[in-house]
Amino acid sequence: MARKFVSKRNCEFLLYEVFDIVSLTKSSYYQQHNKKLFDMMLDAALKLGKDLLQPSFEEMDRHPPTLENGKVKVHASVREIMQKFGEGGWIAAKFAEEFDGEQLPYLISDCCQFIFAAANYSASVFSGLTTKAARLITSFGSQELIKTFVPKMLNGDWQGTMALTEPQAGSSLADIMTTATPTDSDYYHIRGQKIFISAGDHDGVDNVVQLLLARIEGAPPGVKGISLFVVPNLRPDNSGKLISNDVTISQIYHKMGYKGSPITELSIGEKNDCRGYLVGEPNKGLAYMFQMMNGSRLSVGAAAAAISTAAYYSALDYARERPQGRNSKTKDPTSPQIPIIEHADIKRMLLFQRSFAEGAHSLLMQCCRYADLEIVMMGEEKEKASLLLDLLTPVAKSYPSEGSIQSTSLAIQCFGGYGYCDDFPVEQHFRDTRIHAIHEGTTGIQGMDILGRKVRMKDGKAFSLYIEQVEEDMQAATEFDSLKPYVEQLQFSIDELQKVTAELVELGRNEESDVFLSDATLYLEYFSLIAIAWQWLLQSTAATKALSNSPSKAETNFYQGKLFTSRYFFHYELPKIQGLVTRLLDSDRLTMDMKSDYFFD
Amino acid sequence: MARKFVSKRNCEFLLYEVFDIVSLTKSSYYQQHNKKLFDMMLDAALKLGKDLLQPSFEEMDRHPPTLENGKVKVHASVREIMQKFGEGGWIAAKFAEEFDGEQLPYLISDCCQFIFAAANYSASVFSGLTTKAARLITSFGSQELIKTFVPKMLNGDWQGTMALTEPQAGSSLADIMTTATPTDSDYYHIRGQKIFISAGDHDGVDNVVQLLLARIEGAPPGVKGISLFVVPNLRPDNSGKLISNDVTISQIYHKMGYKGSPITELSIGEKNDCRGYLVGEPNKGLAYMFQMMNGSRLSVGAAAAAISTAAYYSALDYARERPQGRNSKTKDPTSPQIPIIEHADIKRMLLFQRSFAEGAHSLLMQCCRYADLEIVMMGEEKEKASLLLDLLTPVAKSYPSEGSIQSTSLAIQCFGGYGYCDDFPVEQHFRDTRIHAIHEGTTGIQGMDILGRKVRMKDGKAFSLYIEQVEEDMQAATEFDSLKPYVEQLQFSIDELQKVTAELVELGRNEESDVFLSDATLYLEYFSLIAIAWQWLLQSTAATKALSNSPSKAETNFYQGKLFTSRYFFHYELPKIQGLVTRLLDSDRLTMDMKSDYFFD
Repeated sequence: MARKFVSKRNCEFLLYEVFDIVSLTKSSYYQQHNKKLFDMMLDAALKLGKDLLQPSFEEMDRHPPTLENGKVKVHASVREIMQKFGEGGWIAAKFAEEFDGEQLPYLISDCCQFIFAAANYSASVFSGLTTKAARLITSFGSQELIKTFVPKMLNGDWQGTMALTEPQAGSSLADIMTTATPTDSDYYHIRGQKIFISAGDHDGVDNVVQLLLARIEGAPPGVKGISLFVVPNLRPDNSGKLISNDVTISQIYHKMGYKGSPITELSIGEKNDCRGYLVGEPNKGLAYMFQMMNGSRLSVGAAAAAISTAAYYSALDYARERPQGRNSKTKDPTSPQIPIIEHADIKRMLLFQRSFAEGAHSLLMQCCRYADLEIVMMGEEKEKASLLLDLLTPVAKSYPSEGSIQSTSLAIQCFGGYGYCDDFPVEQHFRDTRIHAIHEGTTGIQGMDILGRKVRMKDGKAFSLYIEQVEEDMQAATEFDSLKPYVEQLQFSIDELQKVTAELVELGRNEESDVFLSDATLYLEYFSLIAIAWQWLLQSTAATKALSNSPSKAETNFYQGKLFTSRYFFHYELPKIQGLVTRLLDSDRLTMDMKSDYFFD
Repeated sequence: MARKFVSKRNCEFLLYEVFDIVSLTKSSYYQQHNKKLFDMMLDAALKLGKDLLQPSFEEMDRHPPTLENGKVKVHASVREIMQKFGEGGWIAAKFAEEFDGEQLPYLISDCCQFIFAAANYSASVFSGLTTKAARLITSFGSQELIKTFVPKMLNGDWQGTMALTEPQAGSSLADIMTTATPTDSDYYHIRGQKIFISAGDHDGVDNVVQLLLARIEGAPPGVKGISLFVVPNLRPDNSGKLISNDVTISQIYHKMGYKGSPITELSIGEKNDCRGYLVGEPNKGLAYMFQMMNGSRLSVGAAAAAISTAAYYSALDYARERPQGRNSKTKDPTSPQIPIIEHADIKRMLLFQRSFAEGAHSLLMQCCRYADLEIVMMGEEKEKASLLLDLLTPVAKSYPSEGSIQSTSLAIQCFGGYGYCDDFPVEQHFRDTRIHAIHEGTTGIQGMDILGRKVRMKDGKAFSLYIEQVEEDMQAATEFDSLKPYVEQLQFSIDELQKVTAELVELGRNEESDVFLSDATLYLEYFSLIAIAWQWLLQSTAATKALSNSPSKAETNFYQGKLFTSRYFFHYELPKIQGLVTRLLDSDRLTMDMKSDYFFD
């Protein structure tokens, strides 16, 4: 049964009306593309989502991967998906032509990936991971590595992964212990254990290629001694035949959701016969890996927004069709019941979901635009795009991830008891999306990233550029009188953000950084709410502009919906910063002074 | 494997130091009890929780009930639990001696029920429901009904239920359509369909007794025509033998969590041979049922707090044992890692969980105290207790239910990736607790209850009494200088609550009530945060008092922990009311003006 899981109209709105993707085609890098092609891609992605990914959404959850005789078995559709995504050029969409890629803008290719994640998140990760792993090789690997691995990955025959986490280290990558021993040949012997590796093995592809962090014998301790390796599960022998590379799948995890994707534990080099191929220079592995991590962080944020979008459309459909109760004016209990969408509290819950999902999606597209500008611009504009992308990445990862817990929860709430049962997809959305605040750097890690590093980097340059950009967009919005109250509210928030940030940065200068960072997670939440308000101002500006051109009835409804959703965000969500500001300016050192003994009872 | 799921010390603190249960034994109704007995009950409840309920926590989730040949099969432990709870007097704990009950205070019996819910929520509902169903019969039923049904229920042989919801009605009880046709005998013929009936049938008991709402033929439409019936699944024939009463289980629901308890759909009287026995007078069924509904609402709130407590202790244990990372002063990556409880962000998440779970538990105990005072007091004091219990019931139901989603989610977050896997119980806690914002009246229903009814009833008398009580408790807290800042903060919040409430009530006089109630859910959240701050002030007062008596090291840690947790609530949670006040005083009619067409795209 096909369900609406995403809005094509909203994708078009963001691509064409808010972020003006067509302007990118004036650059030489993207000049071979045009709006017609983008339209076709959107249609194709929606069709793939509907026909190829969505049909196995429930099945992949009810029949999760199994580990049989050392091999991970996944849902049969995974092979078909990888093959079709390879053939269709989806895995290689963003790659340059020199790698047989489509050289497509981030804006359109990530928008298509958003559609896939909304249709069936688990099914969408196989190709997404492979794209990023292959890109790591093309960015930093030798020609030999590129030739051996990248074509097979981009055509969907081989899976790519990122293999970072280890049992004793978790988020603390400084403590990685997997070792790489040099040999006389062009490879190292790898030995160690990795946990929580997504798609670390499965029978939907012919081989799996781990992009793996390890420590070369004698390397410096901590993050300065980490190197990046390509470690395939099967390696080509002299004749080109694939043979075992001594990578053992020791377990797969039994997860609450996101079940279609196998998360594996790897034992590497138990027989001392695992070959790893160094990528780039020794001890620079973590810096390289940040390319893939940052990309993955944006993918995680996008997936959280996508899952919430799918849950929202299920809740919206139900709310339109389910009659229950009457409004309070109707005293006659024999009068017909009204659809629940007519109740204010249901509208409030739907508006939360829409303002969250479309606000988050917009911020992700904003990041894609910066990724594209980083490619096509030069000099200061290039640096600006790069800095803003860096600054916004923790926001674009964590706001959607945290918010999607509440958003999918409210989707369940719109259904009442039915939402708690597996007759409807929303309970699965709620379970699936809970992973996002954890993988690719927990929310706590993202908080330390933005406050401890990003707002301070280059003497606050990224932060200053951000403020300038928001103020420029506010200036554009003042063209419309109806938007002025929102410009004022955002201006006030942005001014306050600067003060709060300055105060915290100052605290970081004078005190131990543990104190300065103790509420970094709340600072991230605070920063995020204002960033999403900025995105809603951008969307409101585009919608107000469009309404001035007397659009059709249906289009008017769409744009009015945008304006109401934006109003919802400014009236209901943005005020949440007040309590956060109070806390962030509070000099109480509570979590520093709380002794762990005080938790005993 | 036994895990800590509740704190005995905290139960003692609430019972003896905050709510002074021993003072109740001065009343004639509770005079046969004493502290020693309460201590023994706590110990017994903890032992039952640990030995009888907790062992099947995971199993009941992994092997949910099945419907086989029309009969619901539940986990084998259910029969043992019902029998032991019957024999041990747990089902009858609160019943008067005339019904062979233990005549125990709500405070102690509900505290024991809290322990059971923390150990294994699904396993705890069978007896809890039976208690409330039996009480409905003893309160409003005939001697004949009491004699036939109550002893079997209280000894654990028969299950009690509440059968309200119907497919076309949902939360709108006015639309109930199940019919009751009078006969020449002492019973009615019942015919209809009920959905989402907890424990509507199972093989852990010999019979199930539905307390069921239906409409007697010719009754007025709406809620004024609803009557209450006892409808057993099996009825005694002339010889006393149990025979079918034409109640068919048409399906059981497949739920995301809370899987150990079978939620059933009932088809009643398909063969026109279902006998229902009227409870009390015709057309007064809803008023009677509110006794059971209110009791169930408190049970739901308590269960949400209990599940969060269990999740908190799992997270706390893990945080103490798991080494990861270093504090920022430590630059040497070869130094040992520290337990994650030493990280400020982990402490913040643990403090959230503790402040939530212990704050919520305290509010539930406050409600129990009012239930007890309602029994033992006379005149104005009795009315006061009754009104305050009424006022606080929607708060005590919904604050724990909504907050437990976030609290169990943060328990998962403390575990990182492990929390998302079923090796640890927290992912099940997260799934289990999600039901609570839905069953026994959704959060939206509770919001309309407090703002639309409770704060306005008797010309605002309950609300005034509430303010007086909080102010009285603030006065007591000012005895301690260290608590004065919190008294001031709460005083400010209480003053503001009165203004906001007055403004909303005024709006309700002048405008349609749909407008007045459109943000009732947010008003409920606002009211709740202040109520929990009140509870933390009470706990702080008790802890400060205790610390002045030079307690032992362990006790000092406990009381210091209480003070820090209270500080956390005042510094991190209470400020959230600022954004809510802004919204509640906002004259924007957003959710009223938002047309459902604007959701189209």
